Amino acid sequence: MTTAPTTVLGDRELALRERARHVIPGGMYGHMNVAAFSTAHPQFMVSGDGCRVTDADGHEYLDLMCGWGPVVLGHRHRGVNTAILDQLQRGDCLDGTSPLAVDYAELLVDTVPSADWAMFCKNGTDATTTCVTTARAATGKRKVLVANGAYHGAVPWCSLRGAGVTGEDQAHLVHYEYNDLASAEQAAAEAGDDLAAILVCPMRHDVRRDQELVDPAFARGLRALADRTGAALILDDVRCGHRLDLRGSWEPLGVRPDLTAWSKALANGQPLGAVTGTDALRDAARSIYVTGSFWYAAVPLAAGLATLRELRKGQALPDMLRTGTRLREGLAAQATAHGYGIRQTGPVQMPVLYFDGDDDLSVGTAWAEAAAKRGVYLHPWHNWFLSAAHTDADIDEILERTDGAFTDLR
Amino acid sequence: MTTAPTTVLGDRELALRERARHVIPGGMYGHMNVAAFSTAHPQFMVSGDGCRVTDADGHEYLDLMCGWGPVVLGHRHRGVNTAILDQLQRGDCLDGTSPLAVDYAELLVDTVPSADWAMFCKNGTDATTTCVTTARAATGKRKVLVANGAYHGAVPWCSLRGAGVTGEDQAHLVHYEYNDLASAEQAAAEAGDDLAAILVCPMRHDVRRDQELVDPAFARGLRALADRTGAALILDDVRCGHRLDLRGSWEPLGVRPDLTAWSKALANGQPLGAVTGTDALRDAARSIYVTGSFWYAAVPLAAGLATLRELRKGQALPDMLRTGTRLREGLAAQATAHGYGIRQTGPVQMPVLYFDGDDDLSVGTAWAEAAAKRGVYLHPWHNWFLSAAHTDADIDEILERTDGAFTDLR
Repeated sequence: MTTAPTTVLGDRELALRERARHVIPGGMYGHMNVAAFSTAHPQFMVSGDGCRVTDADGHEYLDLMCGWGPVVLGHRHRGVNTAILDQLQRGDCLDGTSPLAVDYAELLVDTVPSADWAMFCKNGTDATTTCVTTARAATGKRKVLVANGAYHGAVPWCSLRGAGVTGEDQAHLVHYEYNDLASAEQAAAEAGDDLAAILVCPMRHDVRRDQELVDPAFARGLRALADRTGAALILDDVRCGHRLDLRGSWEPLGVRPDLTAWSKALANGQPLGAVTGTDALRDAARSIYVTGSFWYAAVPLAAGLATLRELRKGQALPDMLRTGTRLREGLAAQATAHGYGIRQTGPVQMPVLYFDGDDDLSVGTAWAEAAAKRGVYLHPWHNWFLSAAHTDADIDEILERTDGAFTDLR
Repeated sequence: MTTAPTTVLGDRELALRERARHVIPGGMYGHMNVAAFSTAHPQFMVSGDGCRVTDADGHEYLDLMCGWGPVVLGHRHRGVNTAILDQLQRGDCLDGTSPLAVDYAELLVDTVPSADWAMFCKNGTDATTTCVTTARAATGKRKVLVANGAYHGAVPWCSLRGAGVTGEDQAHLVHYEYNDLASAEQAAAEAGDDLAAILVCPMRHDVRRDQELVDPAFARGLRALADRTGAALILDDVRCGHRLDLRGSWEPLGVRPDLTAWSKALANGQPLGAVTGTDALRDAARSIYVTGSFWYAAVPLAAGLATLRELRKGQALPDMLRTGTRLREGLAAQATAHGYGIRQTGPVQMPVLYFDGDDDLSVGTAWAEAAAKRGVYLHPWHNWFLSAAHTDADIDEILERTDGAFTDLR
């Protein structure tokens, strides 16, 4: 179980890349295109178990990405997989949705204080798009405030990349600076009487920069701004949801959104997104037409319900807080011992690490590649994710390998 | 197996609806909101097997919707489910995609003559959006020709409903009339030198109207128009794909699109979409940023691969053609015998039935409700779908029940 890879990229990986180059543009697309961040991470994976994943050549990695977020209880979590298999044996994509949709909506409403209702979808982008559409339907207005650099999905209305995007796609976005309430007030003034929504992530988790926790005064200020203007406050909890606080990531601050977008960790890897909202937005949510061929499928709902039930037992989040702290403290000590200045930011369950003065991220990339070679899968400029499957012993094993990665930097 | 429901809506269904009313806006959303089309169809389903589905009260229905398209081989098809279970036991949502993505892309490229490459996603809307974005990136232009009334997804840029949609969302759509080449030429002229793409479905399958097969001269005319203007011809094969012709629904006409959007039947119910395209569009597809948390998951890819392998054996489509013809001829004879004028349009694998003179669809709705009460699940104004699991005997059983539904109309 603890054998680190003996080579960087195996023969199967290289052969798959060559084949992929012919039949997939660029060999891969999107955030899992390893060419965008590493020369040492495998592009292809074949299996996962708990907090470990295995590539096509049989190299095992201690997993600090957890499928880039979805896997919150660990790969192939027994309880969730039992629910998946049980539902698969009954049926999945039927002519109506499953009673599980009701059970699950009720459990979300019971768990999330800002939720009076829920709707289900497939992608995080489905959820953010549904939130914005609902807010526009509710208010009859068009402008949406978004933070500079914030990721809310990869479709033209919110894309951070220009290719294929028209000016009209983002004509009604008005930008503010995260944690800068004056800039949000200014953006709202710019929107004038056409303001439909304020869209915000629970923290600033943009790639290629330190993560930034929300200033509670900023969160409260956005809530007040929404109240004052009649705009809907939309919390994009796609990345943080179910990892920081089951009640919604801003509940500890006492700031409740009108609409929340959920996805990633909802169903421990099964494709599921959700929108929850308040009674005041119920009629608007009902008035819009959103749907998808697989939105009603029973298996992901069964997985979502099983995941939330497991999380509500109360052990998973404290476990991640403990192991995440252990990882952060261990990495800090290693960096000091090896003579590197580093910054670890964001919640310990969703950490990221940057080297001081590493403006082009070359040191961080070399360190992440060294970690991959030693059997730890982590990312040089996207936040990582812990799961409840990580034990203290797993963290210690990760740290043993990252210590070697620091050594390799020399 | 053949017991028809003894009551319309059972106690469990009614109890679920009451609970859903509190926690889901309107009790349900999207195309599976039964309130939009019936008082007799169950909102909730618990299982499926072959061409039969069962509602929450244990009422079994012969299924003519097949999950509204995805289920092309039958519910819980053994071969596909074996592939699903096998992959689930290895892992699903990992840190990289599965080698199955390469196997599957290769098999699609081998199957679809217009495909030199493939990308995978979750929803049909993901696929159509990716096609349009790719075309815009390739051409540097913005206008997209779309047919009046055509459904290409349920997000603001293509939504057919107004709530929550802004004018800018659809600012670059220019409309033409399906099967009217002059109207498409006119729309292209209107787009001028800003034409990025011509988006078209393989046939006109808009709801609430007769389906209309494509006029081959129209299809060829669009191809020529795209060639002349440099626009990408995008075939939205989401609904028809893998049911009419594995090579793509316009291959029998000899008209090859530049880009094709796929979803629904790709993976027999597992959530999967795909975009395929030509070499000329490869760099553009590579240049755009599209992604989703679950796009790389292994299980739906395993299901897609197993589904396509099964379909390539060559029996499923001829089977659907035979059983669909049997159904169409049987319904025609019944209508005549009962003294009703009806129209059955579209390919027999994707039929729809309207009553002559039934402008408000009240007769068709009453007949569909009568069929539901007798244990046949079909729709009054959305096309139906056959699967390879329907046998001649199943069709005969359906016909026995629909004959009763015609009687009930009296």
